[in-house]
Amino acid sequence: MTTSGGQDSDTGRIETFSDGVFAIAITLLIIEIGVPHVEVTESLFERLIHLWPSYLGYAISFLVIGIVWANHHNRFRLISRSDHVLLFLNVLFLMCVAFLPFPTALLAEYIREEAHRITAVAVYSGTLAITAVFFTLLWLYAAGNYRLVDRSLDPSLLRAMTRRYVLGMFLYILAFALAFVSPAASLGLIVILALVFVLPEPDGSRRGARRRSLRR
Amino acid sequence: MTTSGGQDSDTGRIETFSDGVFAIAITLLIIEIGVPHVEVTESLFERLIHLWPSYLGYAISFLVIGIVWANHHNRFRLISRSDHVLLFLNVLFLMCVAFLPFPTALLAEYIREEAHRITAVAVYSGTLAITAVFFTLLWLYAAGNYRLVDRSLDPSLLRAMTRRYVLGMFLYILAFALAFVSPAASLGLIVILALVFVLPEPDGSRRGARRRSLRR
Amino acid sequence: MTTSGGQDSDTGRIETFSDGVFAIAITLLIIEIGVPHVEVTESLFERLIHLWPSYLGYAISFLVIGIVWANHHNRFRLISRSDHVLLFLNVLFLMCVAFLPFPTALLAEYIREEAHRITAVAVYSGTLAITAVFFTLLWLYAAGNYRLVDRSLDPSLLRAMTRRYVLGMFLYILAFALAFVSPAASLGLIVILALVFVLPEPDGSRRGARRRSLRR
Amino acid sequence: MTTSGGQDSDTGRIETFSDGVFAIAITLLIIEIGVPHVEVTESLFERLIHLWPSYLGYAISFLVIGIVWANHHNRFRLISRSDHVLLFLNVLFLMCVAFLPFPTALLAEYIREEAHRITAVAVYSGTLAITAVFFTLLWLYAAGNYRLVDRSLDPSLLRAMTRRYVLGMFLYILAFALAFVSPAASLGLIVILALVFVLPEPDGSRRGARRRSLRR
Repeated sequence: MTTSGGQDSDTGRIETFSDGVFAIAITLLIIEIGVPHVEVTESLFERLIHLWPSYLGYAISFLVIGIVWANHHNRFRLISRSDHVLLFLNVLFLMCVAFLPFPTALLAEYIREEAHRITAVAVYSGTLAITAVFFTLLWLYAAGNYRLVDRSLDPSLLRAMTRRYVLGMFLYILAFALAFVSPAASLGLIVILALVFVLPEPDGSRRGARRRSLRR
Repeated sequence: MTTSGGQDSDTGRIETFSDGVFAIAITLLIIEIGVPHVEVTESLFERLIHLWPSYLGYAISFLVIGIVWANHHNRFRLISRSDHVLLFLNVLFLMCVAFLPFPTALLAEYIREEAHRITAVAVYSGTLAITAVFFTLLWLYAAGNYRLVDRSLDPSLLRAMTRRYVLGMFLYILAFALAFVSPAASLGLIVILALVFVLPEPDGSRRGARRRSLRR
Repeated sequence: MTTSGGQDSDTGRIETFSDGVFAIAITLLIIEIGVPHVEVTESLFERLIHLWPSYLGYAISFLVIGIVWANHHNRFRLISRSDHVLLFLNVLFLMCVAFLPFPTALLAEYIREEAHRITAVAVYSGTLAITAVFFTLLWLYAAGNYRLVDRSLDPSLLRAMTRRYVLGMFLYILAFALAFVSPAASLGLIVILALVFVLPEPDGSRRGARRRSLRR
Repeated sequence: MTTSGGQDSDTGRIETFSDGVFAIAITLLIIEIGVPHVEVTESLFERLIHLWPSYLGYAISFLVIGIVWANHHNRFRLISRSDHVLLFLNVLFLMCVAFLPFPTALLAEYIREEAHRITAVAVYSGTLAITAVFFTLLWLYAAGNYRLVDRSLDPSLLRAMTRRYVLGMFLYILAFALAFVSPAASLGLIVILALVFVLPEPDGSRRGARRRSLRR
């Protein structure tokens, strides 16, 4: 809270607030799964098995939000200053993240019904695509001309990050488009993307560390 | 947690608690949007489009709470001490913020029905007006006679802040009054206010920075 | 995170976790107020007015949780170490705090029905009484023989705190007993207690500060 | 936020995010207890008593999540670095923790019905068993070959921790198996496990402290 560190502490507050929204959105997912009401003569076990789309939706969305949180968190380690545009883009980005429990519940409700499956998956993947668009805009704004990132960062690192996010954004848009052809392929791509984004970042800290050690 | 820094750490805890309430209130907004139940012969897409007031309410309230959070956060960077009155005013202020999901759901439910539209918009804008009143009271109490703000702050900065909040408060009260004449104009003013308050503060850090550099 | 500060950081984590539970419990209160469904010919305004017990319950519980948070937070500024018993008592205490949305909704639902009013108010005030019991036990355990509080604290300060909490506890138990005689008096006492506990603590930092300045 | 402390700050962020999920999951438990609707001629008190499985489920789950939080928190005090596998295992672990409100509500709904009791208790204890499996995996990954823990830690401390978690995991799996024989015994074991895990850790900080004092 010193005057010199005021800027950093500002991104710190944005991160804390964002972390809160992530943690709540991810935990609210469970609320959408209602306890089934069965008669004595029915099998509770079968009814619970029948709820599989709810568990699937819960697992995918939990994974996606968890990975998006990790990426958001990693990005803000590079962003050292904040301004009103960043704040605004971050609010729009969080608006998408906090919206996710709704398409998740929609997916769980309608994935079994052929008549509504495409709509449900399209809304779900479309929400993720818009989330990716805002995330990419936020990064492009912060990293462009070193606007809000640390000036000592390697330009090739910033370019690698930008490539990663722009590519990810287009793949999420592809998942949205796929929903109209094959809902299963669309969901499959979303799961693959989550698992790929959990991998270490391609040109990140390792390369920087190597450079630093080469200089010594 | 040193004795000298005890006061600052006290406002730190108020901020953390407030941030938590903001983050939860903003994320709870989605709970109010229920998944629609459609028959196989109906179009899920049309039903989802029909829910537009829910999305509109979600977007406006998310934006408003996000902006109020940013303003609350900026104010507490100037407030360096805390006392029981500030604590109490802050609890009343948070009581209004955490109440917002209710008028938001009311707005989404009744904005389409002409018989109830005025009531719904009036409750919504009225809640925002009361929130603005408590925010302004909190600031007037903290800044009056430098009661709880840093004594080294420029008096013109404090006056500019006070003007900003008192004006904002009257504009929210105007939005409330407008609800009885034109609900659409009332909501329009609320969106404009949110977008205006996201702009850099008029007499804030920039001017202070200029002064500081002039002294050098 | 140094070894010497490990203990303090431990109470820090208990505080952060408790703050989270407080912030969520206080914000969840609004979920219990459902949007009323009215016909075109009915008055939405009248139906909203009819919901006054929900607003009253929301306001009282918000105030009570806010004040309990402030007291909990003030107490942990004196508690410098933590152990497993404190952790366990704190979990039991939080279990009561997080339970509050349920009796609040009960109160809102049944305060207007004479046949059920006493039960609803008794459950509400009883929950607060049990919360006060655990808060007092937590303090007695931490402060007894300076078990977990800073050894440099004035013994008269600790005694004043103990008196304050034991008295508060008995007044909450009185509010519970009053529910069976006069539900209104019980709720009145609860509101008065919240307003009294928001006042500066009688023998707190001021006296300590005076002592410290006398020594100089 | 210095470069050297970057790794520690990274586990700090994982902890903060996890704490958020814990705090929300524990507080959301109350949402599953709905206010009962009684007629004027019925007794509200009796209906509230009839809800005892909901209170029992709330208390057990609150206790379990509280204890799991304390253990998670204690473990991350030993884990000083983080990597993508740890992040991923932690997300899977949190996915189980955040899932708990669902089996808790299931338990409350069906524990009284003999036809469904075994299923409800098996799902509940099974969820806890899977949670314990991920917690143990997370620890084994972090502690194996000192991968992510402080290299100065006593190897016997790490082994004692590992024994503790592997044993705990098998006891939770036993509780799951017991559900099919005696649901009451299964729940009893779960409560006992929570109370045992609240006890001080067997070979923990005390031993390390003794060693340190021996060296002096």
